[in-house]
Amino acid sequence: MTAPLSIVILAAGAGTRMRSALPKVLHPVAGRPMLARVIDAAVALGPDDIHVIYGHGGERVRNALANADVHWVEQAQRLGTGHAVGQAMPDIDDRHRVLVLCGDTPLITTTTLQRLCEAAGDGAALLTAHPADPTGYGRILRDADGAVAGIVEEKDADAAQRAIGEVNTGVMCLPAGHLRGWLDRLTADNAQGEYYLTDVIALARADGVPVAGTATADDGEVLGVNSRAQLATVERLWQRREADRLMAAGVTLLDPARFDVRGELRCGQDVTIDVNCQFIGEVSLGNGTVIGPNCTITDSQIGEGVEIAANSVIEGAVIAGSAHVGPFARLRPGTVLARGAKVGNFVETKNAGVGEGAKINHLSYVGDAEVGADANIGAGTITCNYDGANKHRTVIGEDAFIGSNTALVAPVRIGRGATIGAGSVIRDDAPEDSLTLTGIPQKSVPGWRRPRRDDD
Amino acid sequence: MTAPLSIVILAAGAGTRMRSALPKVLHPVAGRPMLARVIDAAVALGPDDIHVIYGHGGERVRNALANADVHWVEQAQRLGTGHAVGQAMPDIDDRHRVLVLCGDTPLITTTTLQRLCEAAGDGAALLTAHPADPTGYGRILRDADGAVAGIVEEKDADAAQRAIGEVNTGVMCLPAGHLRGWLDRLTADNAQGEYYLTDVIALARADGVPVAGTATADDGEVLGVNSRAQLATVERLWQRREADRLMAAGVTLLDPARFDVRGELRCGQDVTIDVNCQFIGEVSLGNGTVIGPNCTITDSQIGEGVEIAANSVIEGAVIAGSAHVGPFARLRPGTVLARGAKVGNFVETKNAGVGEGAKINHLSYVGDAEVGADANIGAGTITCNYDGANKHRTVIGEDAFIGSNTALVAPVRIGRGATIGAGSVIRDDAPEDSLTLTGIPQKSVPGWRRPRRDDD
Amino acid sequence: MTAPLSIVILAAGAGTRMRSALPKVLHPVAGRPMLARVIDAAVALGPDDIHVIYGHGGERVRNALANADVHWVEQAQRLGTGHAVGQAMPDIDDRHRVLVLCGDTPLITTTTLQRLCEAAGDGAALLTAHPADPTGYGRILRDADGAVAGIVEEKDADAAQRAIGEVNTGVMCLPAGHLRGWLDRLTADNAQGEYYLTDVIALARADGVPVAGTATADDGEVLGVNSRAQLATVERLWQRREADRLMAAGVTLLDPARFDVRGELRCGQDVTIDVNCQFIGEVSLGNGTVIGPNCTITDSQIGEGVEIAANSVIEGAVIAGSAHVGPFARLRPGTVLARGAKVGNFVETKNAGVGEGAKINHLSYVGDAEVGADANIGAGTITCNYDGANKHRTVIGEDAFIGSNTALVAPVRIGRGATIGAGSVIRDDAPEDSLTLTGIPQKSVPGWRRPRRDDD
Repeated sequence: MTAPLSIVILAAGAGTRMRSALPKVLHPVAGRPMLARVIDAAVALGPDDIHVIYGHGGERVRNALANADVHWVEQAQRLGTGHAVGQAMPDIDDRHRVLVLCGDTPLITTTTLQRLCEAAGDGAALLTAHPADPTGYGRILRDADGAVAGIVEEKDADAAQRAIGEVNTGVMCLPAGHLRGWLDRLTADNAQGEYYLTDVIALARADGVPVAGTATADDGEVLGVNSRAQLATVERLWQRREADRLMAAGVTLLDPARFDVRGELRCGQDVTIDVNCQFIGEVSLGNGTVIGPNCTITDSQIGEGVEIAANSVIEGAVIAGSAHVGPFARLRPGTVLARGAKVGNFVETKNAGVGEGAKINHLSYVGDAEVGADANIGAGTITCNYDGANKHRTVIGEDAFIGSNTALVAPVRIGRGATIGAGSVIRDDAPEDSLTLTGIPQKSVPGWRRPRRDDD
Repeated sequence: MTAPLSIVILAAGAGTRMRSALPKVLHPVAGRPMLARVIDAAVALGPDDIHVIYGHGGERVRNALANADVHWVEQAQRLGTGHAVGQAMPDIDDRHRVLVLCGDTPLITTTTLQRLCEAAGDGAALLTAHPADPTGYGRILRDADGAVAGIVEEKDADAAQRAIGEVNTGVMCLPAGHLRGWLDRLTADNAQGEYYLTDVIALARADGVPVAGTATADDGEVLGVNSRAQLATVERLWQRREADRLMAAGVTLLDPARFDVRGELRCGQDVTIDVNCQFIGEVSLGNGTVIGPNCTITDSQIGEGVEIAANSVIEGAVIAGSAHVGPFARLRPGTVLARGAKVGNFVETKNAGVGEGAKINHLSYVGDAEVGADANIGAGTITCNYDGANKHRTVIGEDAFIGSNTALVAPVRIGRGATIGAGSVIRDDAPEDSLTLTGIPQKSVPGWRRPRRDDD
Repeated sequence: MTAPLSIVILAAGAGTRMRSALPKVLHPVAGRPMLARVIDAAVALGPDDIHVIYGHGGERVRNALANADVHWVEQAQRLGTGHAVGQAMPDIDDRHRVLVLCGDTPLITTTTLQRLCEAAGDGAALLTAHPADPTGYGRILRDADGAVAGIVEEKDADAAQRAIGEVNTGVMCLPAGHLRGWLDRLTADNAQGEYYLTDVIALARADGVPVAGTATADDGEVLGVNSRAQLATVERLWQRREADRLMAAGVTLLDPARFDVRGELRCGQDVTIDVNCQFIGEVSLGNGTVIGPNCTITDSQIGEGVEIAANSVIEGAVIAGSAHVGPFARLRPGTVLARGAKVGNFVETKNAGVGEGAKINHLSYVGDAEVGADANIGAGTITCNYDGANKHRTVIGEDAFIGSNTALVAPVRIGRGATIGAGSVIRDDAPEDSLTLTGIPQKSVPGWRRPRRDDD
């Protein structure tokens, strides 16, 4: 039986190269603070406890991640990574294993960490990587048994050592009791005058604790973010990973390089997603649904066989099967489209139910409304839901027909099968199966002369 | 004189890695089923006959490509590529040459196939490639004369053979009479228990039939699609090929990596296409025309010196020279814009003629309408073309001026030079050169108190 | 003290591979003619004079860059680069240094040119590059001291020379007095029968004038544009350079590969720019401002903490802090939004001031208007600013409430605190703190039968 696991996440870096008022670890990757992404990977390991060492930006980091089930530990002085880990040790039992992670490597995966912890067993294990260019990194020396024999820093490395492609990532799993002693024995005899966690590897060797070396599957996993350019690199790697996952599951992406998921996207079979779409929060797409180019979809459930046409912006909507939306549709929170409903171009809906087969095809605003099945809402229809103080509801019956350019002044009810004349302003309920309108006779002024240009 | 050509296209693969309800060869590349793209390349060779071997998805494949002039051959049992080709042989004359293609390599070009057939002459020829990483492919052995001496599979290859970069693509041209005999001699003595077409190369050599080896110009040509990731790769290569072709012809693309043609795009001189546009079906763009970013244009003819501004969606439109469209314009089928016409933001047109110099600049719906030259359609104008049952036409005379927020209830005619007052609902024809309106006197209620919030 | 600097820019190339009616050097890179970009780099060196040698497209090039402070020199006959430089020499003093640039290498930087001129001192210096593939370029021979010993053309190079990765770029800095003599000594004894500037390097060596070799920092700097594909490559390199510069300064770009600046973009701290945006002309973004996907922003000043939501098109606007714009907003020139103002979806503004906290949330056109603080403009409101001849202003007082679907027929004033009834057509000024409307009683026709389909 392996020992219980404690995880320490180092998140105290200043991140000056980000040139930001926001603490570095709060910068989002795929819409979520990068530290939260590291915590996600940690939580999935099922540890006993997670300790986050914070420093710069202190309270702001804690507040941003207030819901995370972690133990916050302040590193008041910045004396190096070894010192940082030491801040958490008073709360960690000697019988635990300690996994040390970096809060600025948001691509780290649970799978890799699991392999690392397994490799450690009762001893230690160090995560290594093989970057395309190892220059600047500490190189990994292995002994005849394949165990990690040491780490040699670039500046101390001879030519043969510099030719080594395997490098230290700073991520490691260590037995807590030993770690406590090693941290006490660290010295700050170096140019920076800092206590380096990396030095515990030599102490482990000296104490005869075996150190396994586990390489990442993908070097992106340990990419640290210290600048906006690195943030962008990590963002794109994350998005490519999402794209690959969805394609493997049977989603057609017209261009995996122009695809963004910031949250969770679940897709049925044979979903097709055109170029340049963004999916934010929790979004689900049913079998055979097609998303056109340049759509932004947030926190919405979309059924089977739906078509979302180009340039639509959808948030907080529930869309049933065979509905047709867009192009240029704006669906706001509380929009619920029934089966086969249509919402067309330059139409905004908000807090609105649209019945089966109902149509709002053009240039309309439908808010705080209920539209019955098979109703037809003409172009330029506005539900006047706001009186300057309160919002009121509009209820439109099944099979009603609202003539174009009509204002429906809520609260108001349009009866089932009612017809509203074009250009009307409907302030009172309209009876069912009747024509209701506010039109007046049209007149012409034959002698009338259109204005001329001032400079004519 | 070379022998007549028969083409056999292998399209029976199951494509389970696509995780799709659609047969693999029907998945579109640049908007067209990949099998149709292979058939296109085949047809351009001018063969006597084309035989498509189908299996998985059977009738669905035939139905989807019902218009293709090909001979459909079912491979009821899946016994390998050699067996598949054999299904077509009863219909192929011994004096023909047989060109065997794969239905899942949509980037194959007619030029390459022509070179292959020429290299075959009266004998055989095999298409080869030089992929960046040849691992896993059968390597091509060449004899002293440069002819193909054999194919050695990865598992049977020694170190020297594995170092060979030239690999088998499975595409070949063979004399039909010989091929018939070789297919009969194939055996299924292998791990899969299948009859492999590749084995005919050895039989050709054994029979003293020379086998030429012709390399593809571009290794993308023989990329087979077995997963959505490969589908995306092939899609992007296709699009890059289109982009390169258009740039070579004198089109400026602001970003060739953000450009999609799904059909045929013909361009005049000095056309400029901004980032992230899609061209679908048959689209033509005249000299000097500029397409803004994020436009989707389908089946439309656009003249010279036209500007299509950002975020426009155009389908089935004919647009004359010097017209100006968008941003945020939606032109639907049957839209015909005359020279210098303008259609602006949040405007939808459908089945509408717009005369020379006429303007529909803002927030309007113009459907089933004829707009005369130099007419000015005010913001918020709606042609009420639908009465809940039928569509009716609106005819607007030359130089007419339609005041803003007007509803034109079709059928209705607005006379030449007529002016319509803002906010009118026009149900009857409006005489020419007159002012027509439905306005009523405005009144004010001085003592009126605006509603307060419910919670005030 | 170094000698005064004269710059000669070669811009006479025909550019036939561009297949364009526009002279090659006028094709834009990042929205500006590539020749203007080279002139920009030259001007920043603070030279005494700049001479642009033009040929093909002659007057058109001069007219396009009429504002550039350069001396235009026609090369009537196309006799080679040496001949071209010779056309400028009558205007250049013997005591000057001459820097020769190419008008079709728009990525050249002032920093690199400065290094080149410094390396030249009183002698000569040649700019060199290390392209990924040097094939086809003249290779640089260096002597034991590291000076340039000569240039050997591909066709004359032996195997060892072909292995040299350093190549000639054609850019050089030379003492004017010497250059005059060397140009006189050039011969056209070559296949093209042209006078090659490159040959002066050998003459310099022969005359004992030292030739320094200065390598570009980035090989993109000397990429010449001879085709639309190269134009696209240079465009993307320029954009990536802009992206890198902004990220280094602390801007978050969701995708640096989908980002375009055509002009100058200045950003405060912690600006976030989503995918696929274009910035044109002079644009500034204040601290903490967020730009959504697919926005096009031209010549606008945007304050702190502003959110521009997806798919907005903004031109010539001034937007104060905490304003909220879009999605699908179209702000046209003369739009001025005060602090906290909101302009929402399918709204167009032009020449309009919108007061602090005022809202125009949906489907409206507000042009030639002043909207007071905290006013609320209902959905579907249209300012009817145009009478067919002249534009008139609409003035809306503070805290006014405009009911939906209202037409405001300018010139018109809506008083402070006034309320306008939905669906009104307001032609006369509306008094403050009152309700004003044009509504009429609504009527219903119970026996009315909706039209049936013609084919019913």
